[in-house]
Amino acid sequence: MSVIRNDALLTDLYQLSMVQGYLEQGMEETAVFEFFVRKLPPGRSFLVAAGLAQVIEYLRTLSFSGEALAWLESTGRFSSRLLDYLQNFSFTGDVHAMAEGTVFFADEPILRVTAPMPQAQLVESRLINLLHFQTLVATKAVRCVLAAPGKLLVDFGMRRAHGREAALLAARASYIAGFAGTSTVSAAAAFGIPVYGTMAHSFIQSHDDECQAFEHFARAQPGNVVLLIDTYDTERAAGKVVALAPRLAAAGIAIKAVRLDSGDLAMHARKVRRILDAGGCAEVRIFVSGNLDEHELRGLLEQGAPIDGFGIGTRLTTSADAPYLDCAYKLQEYAGRPRRKKSEGKATWPGRKQVFRRYDAHGRLAGDVLTLEDDDTPGRPLIEPVMRQGEALPGRPDLEAVREHTREELGRLPAPMHALEGGPAVVAEVSPALKSLVAEMESAPATFG
Amino acid sequence: MSVIRNDALLTDLYQLSMVQGYLEQGMEETAVFEFFVRKLPPGRSFLVAAGLAQVIEYLRTLSFSGEALAWLESTGRFSSRLLDYLQNFSFTGDVHAMAEGTVFFADEPILRVTAPMPQAQLVESRLINLLHFQTLVATKAVRCVLAAPGKLLVDFGMRRAHGREAALLAARASYIAGFAGTSTVSAAAAFGIPVYGTMAHSFIQSHDDECQAFEHFARAQPGNVVLLIDTYDTERAAGKVVALAPRLAAAGIAIKAVRLDSGDLAMHARKVRRILDAGGCAEVRIFVSGNLDEHELRGLLEQGAPIDGFGIGTRLTTSADAPYLDCAYKLQEYAGRPRRKKSEGKATWPGRKQVFRRYDAHGRLAGDVLTLEDDDTPGRPLIEPVMRQGEALPGRPDLEAVREHTREELGRLPAPMHALEGGPAVVAEVSPALKSLVAEMESAPATFG
Repeated sequence: MSVIRNDALLTDLYQLSMVQGYLEQGMEETAVFEFFVRKLPPGRSFLVAAGLAQVIEYLRTLSFSGEALAWLESTGRFSSRLLDYLQNFSFTGDVHAMAEGTVFFADEPILRVTAPMPQAQLVESRLINLLHFQTLVATKAVRCVLAAPGKLLVDFGMRRAHGREAALLAARASYIAGFAGTSTVSAAAAFGIPVYGTMAHSFIQSHDDECQAFEHFARAQPGNVVLLIDTYDTERAAGKVVALAPRLAAAGIAIKAVRLDSGDLAMHARKVRRILDAGGCAEVRIFVSGNLDEHELRGLLEQGAPIDGFGIGTRLTTSADAPYLDCAYKLQEYAGRPRRKKSEGKATWPGRKQVFRRYDAHGRLAGDVLTLEDDDTPGRPLIEPVMRQGEALPGRPDLEAVREHTREELGRLPAPMHALEGGPAVVAEVSPALKSLVAEMESAPATFG
Repeated sequence: MSVIRNDALLTDLYQLSMVQGYLEQGMEETAVFEFFVRKLPPGRSFLVAAGLAQVIEYLRTLSFSGEALAWLESTGRFSSRLLDYLQNFSFTGDVHAMAEGTVFFADEPILRVTAPMPQAQLVESRLINLLHFQTLVATKAVRCVLAAPGKLLVDFGMRRAHGREAALLAARASYIAGFAGTSTVSAAAAFGIPVYGTMAHSFIQSHDDECQAFEHFARAQPGNVVLLIDTYDTERAAGKVVALAPRLAAAGIAIKAVRLDSGDLAMHARKVRRILDAGGCAEVRIFVSGNLDEHELRGLLEQGAPIDGFGIGTRLTTSADAPYLDCAYKLQEYAGRPRRKKSEGKATWPGRKQVFRRYDAHGRLAGDVLTLEDDDTPGRPLIEPVMRQGEALPGRPDLEAVREHTREELGRLPAPMHALEGGPAVVAEVSPALKSLVAEMESAPATFG
């Protein structure tokens, strides 16, 4: 099931204006653009690359429908040369990228597009839109995984995600990060992610009796009995669960878990655990939700709260404490010559670049070098070819492989990077070759300014 | 062009589980759910309702495709009773709501669904998803409008919006709020919103000469010449614009504006304004962008920066300082009896409610009363019928009418609510009738707990 709608008009107007300008001037030589994050948001000591699969799908399938072309023509803004070009458009360029799930840092490109200038320009807006959001959420989700090792984490964030696609892609990004699954049914259908669910307060409230609501729900869903116990009085409801359990057991139905969604979750979890254990329900798990994020998770677990799983919603799918990344897709080379933007506070490293990663004796990440692609530097090169002449290269990893790669990446993180407060981030060392290139360009400013 | 994809599986798993439970028990009597915001986010003294048009479209068209049903069946989780029900599903309920663009406050319902229980339950997740995001962005955008009265404001936020739908709906929500338009082409195509655009640094960088880049762009886009002048040196580039203007004028091309995107925008705007004025380019406007929000706008204008228009991107479309609302869709009545959730910190006001608004002698908002629908209270009732038996009522306002209503609402805001720091919000007065209902329910706790 394809998730990314082919929507060629999902772009900024200026991309079309600029393509029109390039075509007028015959500027169709090869351009190289790179996507990178300028600066890590507060509280982050690393980022996790995600969204490449959707970028590849977008580039592979990008085309302008008759309806889109007719609309563009109706605006009276565009030349017939541009409209002809768009009618025959397909992306024929190359793409190099870091694998999804790879840990990265500021100024390190995670994707490079090499294509005729109008093509490389046209795809900018959507490409940023896709890489930005999944990287944002994968990073947030990985922080939750680090805060609650071994716990069952489930994405509950569809309702307050920013629209449909955000909900779907957040489910994907958090699964990559190590979440067990999502409550979003269409994400399960689209990506094959395991789907989880419990019940809402409305089910309880619509019954006159809470215990009857529990029993009705259990009998209707015998394979997935998770009962929400905080609608009226959490501990009284736990007592009702204990009373109900033998009756359900007689019918062959096991209560898998109870869910708490309000109040002091650690305190209630402890009380409920005691009630369940004393009532012969030691096997019933405790699942909690309600305004959770990585800090809440760590706090609850540090207090020793007997919680087995967490539903993490809004703060995950909106990346609430850092809802955007300062990222960019910038021209680094055109017609065989390196290019450099010098705007205040936004200057870029020119040329086609590679990131080499070094590890210490224990296999932990020790540092990165940012250099030119053809520079021979020790370490593991992180940027690999992923598309050639508009086609995806064979052997692209599936979602499970991406998830496994992320797990390995987290295993290579040095301990200080497990801190949630934003420990010391790696600052990629800039190679002598790259510095020389900049110096060379600076010494001939007239050509570039 | 329809924007909302019919995607019935875009829901939380538990909605399907609960519907299965309701069907098993024959619980198909009328349920009443209301959507409201529990608490305003920090820094907000009011919210602006938005997203109703998409909710109506969703409810009108919701159905389960053969593909969706086949997938549900393949999971083995669902009863054939549920699958049959979904196969024949259509929404047949009533909806009451506040008009889009209406100012509202905590605990005030902005939408009510009255429908058979399984229907009213099933639509919860997507309905919240649609109302939440547009309300969030309309509110953020209105704050920008209040900060920069009379200025041209344009949504530039597609690239870092959270996915495709967020970009589209943010363009709509900010247009409702009073923005002049958007840079997102597909939002222009879908909603008829005016589209704006300039040029990017890559266009400049791909030329060896900045002045030549300006001229190429102007000749390719003679009707919309906005030149980006901060790629290398802003003031030098302003000088090049002055030199270029007569040459373009001779060809009948006017330079409409220059854009600044980095550095100290107020300082550069002043210098550039002087260069343009001294060079006979007094009619060339100054447009700025780059990490703007309502606070930046007010700061720039308070400094007297000679800026005519603003492109506002990421912080608008992610509502960066408040990326979510604490909102809920809660059961208030079932089978003719009021219902109330009592969870800690999340208790709800039961029953079918209305909000009455009072104004002072100058027509400014003076206060709200939250009461039961059939309670006769002075003031303007804000909740109106919008759908009956699954059909939208005739006379729904178009986007321009919604925009005009928002403008009127802002004209009725008392002056302290123009403060960006979150002045005193209105706290709706709870009517005696509503308090009596709660007291009555409290005195018979056994029935509800």
